[in-house]
Order: sequence, then C-alpha cells, then structure tokens
Amino acid sequence: MGHLERLTGPADLRELEARELDELATEIRDFLVAKVSRTGGHLGPNLGVVELSIALHRVFDSPRDRVVFDTGHQAYVHKILTGRADGFDKLRQHGGLSGYPSQAESPHDIVENSHASTSLSYADGLAKAYAIRGEDRHVVAVIGDGALTGGMAWEALNNIADTVQGGDERRLVIVVNDNGRSYTPTIGGLANALTALRTNPRYEPLLDVVKRRLNGVPGVGPAVYDALHAMKKGMKDALAPQGLFEDLGLKYVGPVDGHDRAAMEQALTQAKRFGGPVIVHAMTRKGFGYDPAEQHEADQFHGPGPFDALTGVETPKGRIWTDVFNDEMVAIGRERRDVVAITAAMMHPVGLDGFAAHYPDRTFDVGIAEQHAATSAAGLAMGGLHPVVALYATFLNRAFDQVLMDVALHRCGVTFVLDRSGVTGDDGASHNGMWDMSVLQVVPGLRLAAPRDPARLRELLREAIAVDDAPTVVRFPKGAPPADIEAVGTVGAMDVLARRGDRDVLLVGVGSMASTAVEVAERLTAQGIGVTVVDPRWVKPYDDAIVALAGEHRMVVVVEDNGVSGGCGASLLQLLNERRVSTPVRLHGIPQEFLDHAKRNAILERVGLTPQAIALSVTEEFAAGLGDGDAERAPAPHHPADRA
Amino acid sequence: MGHLERLTGPADLRELEARELDELATEIRDFLVAKVSRTGGHLGPNLGVVELSIALHRVFDSPRDRVVFDTGHQAYVHKILTGRADGFDKLRQHGGLSGYPSQAESPHDIVENSHASTSLSYADGLAKAYAIRGEDRHVVAVIGDGALTGGMAWEALNNIADTVQGGDERRLVIVVNDNGRSYTPTIGGLANALTALRTNPRYEPLLDVVKRRLNGVPGVGPAVYDALHAMKKGMKDALAPQGLFEDLGLKYVGPVDGHDRAAMEQALTQAKRFGGPVIVHAMTRKGFGYDPAEQHEADQFHGPGPFDALTGVETPKGRIWTDVFNDEMVAIGRERRDVVAITAAMMHPVGLDGFAAHYPDRTFDVGIAEQHAATSAAGLAMGGLHPVVALYATFLNRAFDQVLMDVALHRCGVTFVLDRSGVTGDDGASHNGMWDMSVLQVVPGLRLAAPRDPARLRELLREAIAVDDAPTVVRFPKGAPPADIEAVGTVGAMDVLARRGDRDVLLVGVGSMASTAVEVAERLTAQGIGVTVVDPRWVKPYDDAIVALAGEHRMVVVVEDNGVSGGCGASLLQLLNERRVSTPVRLHGIPQEFLDHAKRNAILERVGLTPQAIALSVTEEFAAGLGDGDAERAPAPHHPADRA
Repeated sequence: MGHLERLTGPADLRELEARELDELATEIRDFLVAKVSRTGGHLGPNLGVVELSIALHRVFDSPRDRVVFDTGHQAYVHKILTGRADGFDKLRQHGGLSGYPSQAESPHDIVENSHASTSLSYADGLAKAYAIRGEDRHVVAVIGDGALTGGMAWEALNNIADTVQGGDERRLVIVVNDNGRSYTPTIGGLANALTALRTNPRYEPLLDVVKRRLNGVPGVGPAVYDALHAMKKGMKDALAPQGLFEDLGLKYVGPVDGHDRAAMEQALTQAKRFGGPVIVHAMTRKGFGYDPAEQHEADQFHGPGPFDALTGVETPKGRIWTDVFNDEMVAIGRERRDVVAITAAMMHPVGLDGFAAHYPDRTFDVGIAEQHAATSAAGLAMGGLHPVVALYATFLNRAFDQVLMDVALHRCGVTFVLDRSGVTGDDGASHNGMWDMSVLQVVPGLRLAAPRDPARLRELLREAIAVDDAPTVVRFPKGAPPADIEAVGTVGAMDVLARRGDRDVLLVGVGSMASTAVEVAERLTAQGIGVTVVDPRWVKPYDDAIVALAGEHRMVVVVEDNGVSGGCGASLLQLLNERRVSTPVRLHGIPQEFLDHAKRNAILERVGLTPQAIALSVTEEFAAGLGDGDAERAPAPHHPADRA
Repeated sequence: MGHLERLTGPADLRELEARELDELATEIRDFLVAKVSRTGGHLGPNLGVVELSIALHRVFDSPRDRVVFDTGHQAYVHKILTGRADGFDKLRQHGGLSGYPSQAESPHDIVENSHASTSLSYADGLAKAYAIRGEDRHVVAVIGDGALTGGMAWEALNNIADTVQGGDERRLVIVVNDNGRSYTPTIGGLANALTALRTNPRYEPLLDVVKRRLNGVPGVGPAVYDALHAMKKGMKDALAPQGLFEDLGLKYVGPVDGHDRAAMEQALTQAKRFGGPVIVHAMTRKGFGYDPAEQHEADQFHGPGPFDALTGVETPKGRIWTDVFNDEMVAIGRERRDVVAITAAMMHPVGLDGFAAHYPDRTFDVGIAEQHAATSAAGLAMGGLHPVVALYATFLNRAFDQVLMDVALHRCGVTFVLDRSGVTGDDGASHNGMWDMSVLQVVPGLRLAAPRDPARLRELLREAIAVDDAPTVVRFPKGAPPADIEAVGTVGAMDVLARRGDRDVLLVGVGSMASTAVEVAERLTAQGIGVTVVDPRWVKPYDDAIVALAGEHRMVVVVEDNGVSGGCGASLLQLLNERRVSTPVRLHGIPQEFLDHAKRNAILERVGLTPQAIALSVTEEFAAGLGDGDAERAPAPHHPADRA
C-alpha cells in the first residue's frame, strides 16, 4: 500500500518524512499519468506542480488558509492531496470529479472559474476581508507566468502592492508558477522580465538549476545562457538586480526550484512569516517527470484526450471543426496578403498553427490577453489589414467592451472566430460558449454567422473576411462537424434545408443545430405536420426574408446552441414582434443557468436540445390545438391592483 | 491678432519661434479656460498637455503619423492645433465639437472611444500594420499614468515589448503623461514604480523640476522627497537605476518636464529617431497654469460644468442621483460594518466620497481596473463582507466576464451600482450606459433593479445589499432625479403608479422612465384609453405577477432607458411568449446604434423616448384597431422557397 492510498487529507502530509514525500510525489505522477491516459484531462500542468502542491499543503493549513488556483486545471494534485484520488476514474464526467476546483466537492476548493488571470484579484479580496475582520488566515494564490500576461493580473498586482490602501496586515502569498509557458511559450516583455529574475545573480546557488531546467526547452536555452552571462543588459544590471515585482514595491522570494520540495517549503515558510503580500517565484517544468510530456513540443500534454500511458501516443481523433478552420485560413492567407491572425496564447487549440507555420510574420500570439487581441486587431484594421481573431467562445466575454467600443464603434473590419461555442461539456460551467449569440446582439453593426457544416464554415469565413467596415463573428462548436448538409433551395440569403407538406412549422436551425432541425423535421413529417427547415447562415442581422417566411407559417421554432435568454430565438421573436408578425415563436436553446460538467451529448439531452424532445414539444402543441394555450388573457373579475 | 487665431494646422507650428510658441501656449490656456467655463467639459487634463501637444505636432507629421490619445478628453489642445478652435463654442453640443477625438471631425483623429487604457493596443496594431505594409509612418500613443493602471495597457505593453513577434521595424512612441492622477491620485504599485523613475538620478538636472512639480501635490511631496534621497530602496538602487519599463525590455527616455516644450521636443525627436518601440516619460501637472484648477483638491477641474473663469467657482448644480446614493451609503455603512465600497478611480464622480470619508478602511480605489473591481469584490464577499462596486454603467462592460464567471458563478453577494446609465448624451457614444440591462440578462442568478426616484434608490439599494448569494445591480441615470413618485398600490413586488379606466394598456415604466410612463398615461387617458402604470422595481427577474397582469390588458408597453435589443422590454416579451400570453407587446427603448453627442433630452426626443411620442404611437395603434397590423401572415400563393 502506497502513501497515496493512505492519504486522507493535508494533515497526513505533515506526518511524512522527506523520503516518504519523495515517494509520494512519484506515486502521484504515476497516478496522474495512469488516470488521465484513460479519461483525458489536463496533464502537463499538473505534473509540473506535484512538489509545489505538497509543499503548499505542508506549510499552509487549508481550508483555514485559502489556496486559490489560477486556471484551476492545475489543481489535480491539490485534489489528490485533499482526499479525492478516488474520483479520478470519472474525471470530468457526469457525477464525477470536476476538472477544476469545485466548492461542491470540497471545502479546500474556492475558485471554479477556468478563465485565466483571476486568482490575484480573488486573493486580494480575500486577504483584505480577513484583515478587516481581524482573522489571522493566509491566502495563497498560485498563478502561472502565462496567466500573468492577462491584464487582470496586472490590475491585481498594482492593488496588492498598494500598502496605503491595503496595509500590511494582509496575509497574502503569491506563488508564481513559472514554467515559461501557457499552452505555448509565454510571450512578451513579461517573459523578458521573468528571465531576468530567473538569472538573478543574487541567487547564484540556483544558477545551475536554472541552466539545467531551461537549457532543454527549445528556443529558451540560448536566451537564458546569454542572460546568465549578463550579456544582454550589461554588468551593472547584473550587479544590482532589481525586478518587475520589486519595482512595483512587492516583496519577492526566489527564484526557487519548484521541483525541490524542501526548497519550496523553505521559501513558502519564509513568505508565510513575512507580514504583508509577498511573491514566491517558483521555476517548474510543465510535464515534469513524464518523458512523453516533457518531450511534447507543442504543449507538453497540456490537455490531451485519452492516450497510451507508456508511449504517450494519443488515441487518434477524427477531424474536428477546428481543422476545417485551420486549413481554410492557410488557403485564405495565400490569397489575401492583408489577412493577419491573432491568438490569445492558444495557437494550436484554436487552429491557427497552420496559418502561423505558413505566415509567421502575419501571426500574433498576444498572450492570455483577449482585450488586447480585440483592440490591437482594431488597430491592425485601421492600418489597412484584416485581422482574424480566433478564440474559444467563452473567452470573448473578456473582450466584450473592446468588441463594442474599439472595433464596432470605429467600424473596423475584424473577424472573430469562436471555437467551442455552445455546450462544450466536460470542462464545466465556465468553458461553455453559451453567451456570445446573446450579448453580441447589442453590438451595432456586428454581423454573426453560425455555420452548420464544414462547407458553410469555409463559405461564411470568407464572407466574414470580406466585410471591411464592421466586426464579424463566425462561431462553431467543439468536436466533429457533421457531413455537409446541402440546401434544397434558398430564401434571400438563407438556405432551405427541407420543405415538406403544408406550411405548418418554420424550423430555424442555427449553426450546429441545423442538423438537429433536419431530424426534427423528419419526425414532424411522420406526424403529418408540414415543415420548412431553414438555416439563416447569418443570424445577426437576420435576412429580412425571414419575416415574410415566418408570417406564412403557423408556428416558428428556433433551435440554437446558445443560452435561451436574448439569443437568436429571442432576437427573432423581437424582430417578428416589431414587424407585427404574430405567428407563435417557440424557442429551444440552453436554459440560462451554469451547467455542471458532463459530455456535450449528455447535457444536450438533459436540457432537451435533441430531435426527439423538440419534435415532441411541437407535436404536443399541435395536438392540443395550436393557439389554445394563448388564453391567459381572459380578464380577471376585478382589477389586480385592487389587492394593494 | 494672436497666434491661435492664425493657426490653421500643425504645419503652422513649425514656422513659429520659441518665444511665439510660449505665447501660443498661454493663449491656448486662456482660450481653454474661457471656452470650457461656458460649456463645461474636460479642463484639468487639457491644461496639463498644452506644451506636450505642441511638441508632438512639431515633431511628428499628423495625420501621416498617427497620434492616438488614451481617454480622448485630453485631446482639446490637439483639436485646437489641428484647426478646430472655432468649434469650441458648441463643445459637446448637438452639431458642435465632440469632447473626444472624432474621425468625422478631422483626419487627425483616430480613436473616439472614451474608455481608458486602450491607446497602446490600438498603437500596437497600427504600428504592426505599417511594418507589415512597409509604410514608414510613426504611431504615437499618449497615455496617462492613471490609464496605465488598467489591465489592457499592461497586455499591450507586454506585446509591444515583444521584439520577437513585433520586430524592431515598428515606429512606435509611447508618451506616458504622468501627472500622478486619474480623477484622483493614481493608486498602487504602478505609482511606486513611476515615483522611482521620476527620481532616477541618471537625470539629475531634472531633479529640481521633479521636486518643484511634485512637492505641491498633497500627499505626494514627502514620498518623493524620501525617494530623492534614495532612502526607500537603498543606495545601490539609486546608483544602478532600472525601472518597470526597462524590466519589460522597453526602451525608455525620461523623465522629461512635460511643461518644458523644448525638452519635450528633444525627447520626442530622440524617440522618433530610435528604431522600435520607445517610452517617453513626461511629467505634467493637471490644471497647470490655471490657479483655481491647480488648487482644486478633488480632481483639478477634471471635468467641471460651467464655471466662473476668474474665480473658478462652478455654477451650482442641483442635487443629482449620485448624491442620493452617496448619502445612503454613509447611512448603510454606519449600520452594517460588513459593507465595503469599491471605486475604479472615480471616487467623487460615482459618489463614494462620503463613504470613503467616514469609513476609509472599508473603501478601495482599485485604479481604472473594472475587472479587478469585480473579482476582488468576489473575493471580499467570499471573505464574509458585502462589497458595493460603484461604476458608470458603460464601464461595467469592461467587467462583464468577471460579473458572470467570478461573481455570479460563485454565488457571491456583490452589489454593482451603475451611475450614468441610459442616455448620458454630451460625452458621446461610448459614455452612454445603454448596454447593461441587455447584456446582464444572460447572467444566471443576477438581480437587477432600476429605481424610479430617490426613495426607490434608497430602498432598492438596501434590498440589493441584503442579497448575499448572487450579484445585484442598481442602475440610475445621469443628472437630477424626479421628485418621489408614490405608488397607488402594488401587484406582487411591483408598484402601481396609476390606474385609470379600462384595462387597455399596461404601461411598464422602467427606472427613470417611470415618470415618463406616468405622463404617457395622462395623455392616453385624455384619449379615452384605459391605463395601468407599473414600475417593476426589479426587472431581472420580473415578479411573476407581471405575467397575469399583462394577460389582463389589451396591450403591454415597455418604456426603458436602455438599448431596445434584448433589453427589459425584449425580456418581458420573451417571458410572456414563454408563458403563452399573447397580448401584443410594444417596446420603447434606445435604438441599437451608437448615438452622437448631444444633451440627454435632445437625444431622448430624437429617438422618440418622450411622453408625446410614446403616447402618439399607442393612440395611433388603438385608432387603427388594435391587432389589424398583425396581418402579415396571409399565406403567399406559392411556397417562397420555390424561388431557389
């Protein structure tokens, strides 16, 4: 029986000796590789924080002390150490462990949000609250160097460094988990600054560690080597080291070898004893201790699907939506030299690696910085280029103000491509891309397209890039696209996908839900209900032809993979209301709630976004006599306000 | 005839001699004070950039070179220098000069957005575009130290410092206009870092200037004095100066006395000659050269209304919505010691100065950092306090993701108070707070209240603060509130403000539009149309009683001071549709477009949000026979898809 199996919680860690802790670390790594190889999940980041997490839980007393993980996918080890190893068999599955911290799972968990760069703000708030309430509890934030490229983290650092407002009663320790990467190597001035810190000669005993750790990383080694010899900035700098954090007035401990548990414990203990906010700079390596991950060039097994634990070979995936976009961007880049691409630290996941390989000078990785992605795109557009900003749909919310005020107000031709829109499922509530088609409705001039299949993705992407005076959005879901669904006709700019029998139901299938709508139509036809199925292609604005078409049917049914509040269905309802078309409109979208993690299909089933459920609801309404349900307006015998 | 009157554009500046330029600077200051004293507008920031703007336009060749102003209210001098002095008589009025740069006004203007911290991102994009296109044009961004506290600016700096992706072909000059303030003194670590730079002994000849400039500023003098003597960080630092920007790898010129035109020109010329991005650090004083502004403690006449040019005494304003909030927060703070307040660098404008004066330890100014405001509030709530985050409505868009993912997902009791919601008018498109009631509809659990009068503001603020497991929002407009409008009854949680005659029209008056709705009701009654007027108080979620109430009327009319797309009217339409209530719903909100600057009342009139216009539209529909307009659904003779 290993240490891991006997572990019930953090207190047990404090009973173990050094040798046992080393054994535990090895067990944890083996455990992570074995489990994640079966379920898929975040591997590389967690292999990099084994010793760091053990040290944290030995030095601090969670849950009395609070440990906040930035981008909680690095919290697997924390979950194991807080007694949840058993849950890993059903990681990220319905009823199983969340892939992120979860308050419902454990009192040791705090922040469930998977959006990056938030931890320092939470920690600042928590530490101030405890200081105000006079509670002697420590708050620890663990943040990667990648997450430090996000503007929020800077806003927080600026506040944490404010000793006037914050005072020094705050028990706040910031652990910078510096592995030089987010998905891909961390970009920009921050990387320079961290390199300077890493190579700070105050910490000469650590230099060999630095060298050993970093020389193996492609593209980093030589720069570090230069820095080690103080060639870059001159001897004066090397003799009088300062750094980013100290410039802001923040206390700084480090750099520390994040894989040297004893050193980590020492640094954390020192930080804990210090009054007021302090930074502990830990150097780690993503994927540490598992060869296939360490040697994986693209992202050190950041978040693989199931793979062979021995060889690290991933179970082959089929072609996904992202691949279609990836290939088309390469083709577009060849034809239009004014097209440039922007990613927010997710080159591969959003499918810009093809474009980047072909046109490196026209590709920009801005870091985890969606705000800058949007507004620098506005600048690029003003400078005569057409930027394509590729993001996960949920992360566009970070740049909502910038899309509205910087891109749309200035009439800039910028195309946003939103991958992982709609229900994504296994990454939990904050990864679902169910917001974009609602909130973007308010943006004047913005045009939004939802392709139903690969052919439409290629086509609509090109139509979007052809717009040079307004923001355009193309959104598609996670996973494999359906085979192309050819139109049987068109109405205005809309595709008609089926028409059968009378004009009873106008089925509007938005994007990936077009194929669902076609299936619904088959079921309705079988019940003798006539159907027209359209894919509007562009859902903002709708083609005006949809107004007359709706008026010609007895019912309009909109099916969309987006929150039902204010989404495409609601916007069509509003349009028809404005145009005085009184055909009943039925909305089928995602209920407006935070969805627990589960597979996409399981969620769609649960929320009724399946052909069966939608067809059933329509047939029932027809069977009950359409319109009979609209009878709530019978006047009450007395005026309701009389109650008052 | 002065130099100013003869000035037709930047080229003329290059013909003037030093003495003449000094005279021009004086003329510009007199002109600004004279004009803004009549119209109101941004004064302090512009008095601080007179020499800086002259120097910019002498060294760079606008509009070939592009000058991007962050928070464009500091662009008045730029407007004067580019030939628009004549327009200042109608500053910020319909048909007159915008208070911000405006592409429609001049080819010298680029960024119209008044949201802070964006300039570096635009500039990064523009500079990259010119580098890619091989155009030898310079891009200059002018950004205040206050705007540097915003996370976006950090994201941009991180990218600008990236020489790998950006290369050194970018002709990019960043002028940091460091006056130590946004509205109020700049907070946080950044202020420390800038102070360190200001007192950099490399620039000894400038030390006296530093001392002279800063010693007069309350609260800054002593800190600077300390720093001057290198007491804070030790002699070693003083001997080997480095700084924030150089840590990131950015070239740095400065500090320069921003009121010494010749020195500014020299620094800008040096920066212009340098290949690649470079920072010019200019020290200025807000309100410089106009005693009443320099001595104005709160904000150096940041954005006064009309005032007496000689004495600086502002024309007295009546009591505004903000004052009601200000006073109530002081009262609440006395009763509830767990209530804390957060402002994003706008303590006075949002009315938290009262709370701050009484409870300084429970008040946090986070800088221009709405993201951190929201997420640190989540942290404070998790720590057992109840934060009230007071913002201008339009700036909440900056924190949309944080409200959704950090506050709502984690069920934190945080109250957002949105001042300047709806049409604000004279500050132009990006200041109108017409988005919040639409985009917040998607946030699960969030509750939103719109008070109609001072009594309701006090009442709803308290109801909001009583919610401890979800975000709450209280929004009210700019300017003077109406006298309290007492209810004649209630339906559920809604107030009934009037009921007259038959149940023909249910008028839903949202927030400040309740008084408009009451006036509409009077006009309808005069036409023999029966009316019930309700103020829902909470518009998200609606009290369920509104469903039955709507069903009992022949028409529902919603009046709101918010964009019509997806707003309160649309959300009621969706609710009634879902509940199968088919009473026609008519929406009266702000058209979904960017509104040109003008007075609030002028805009409301233009967009039809007046009692006259709304009453007319309802009466016309009743006169035409309600429901006859809903006849578009007559089936066409052939299936429309046959066209294909």
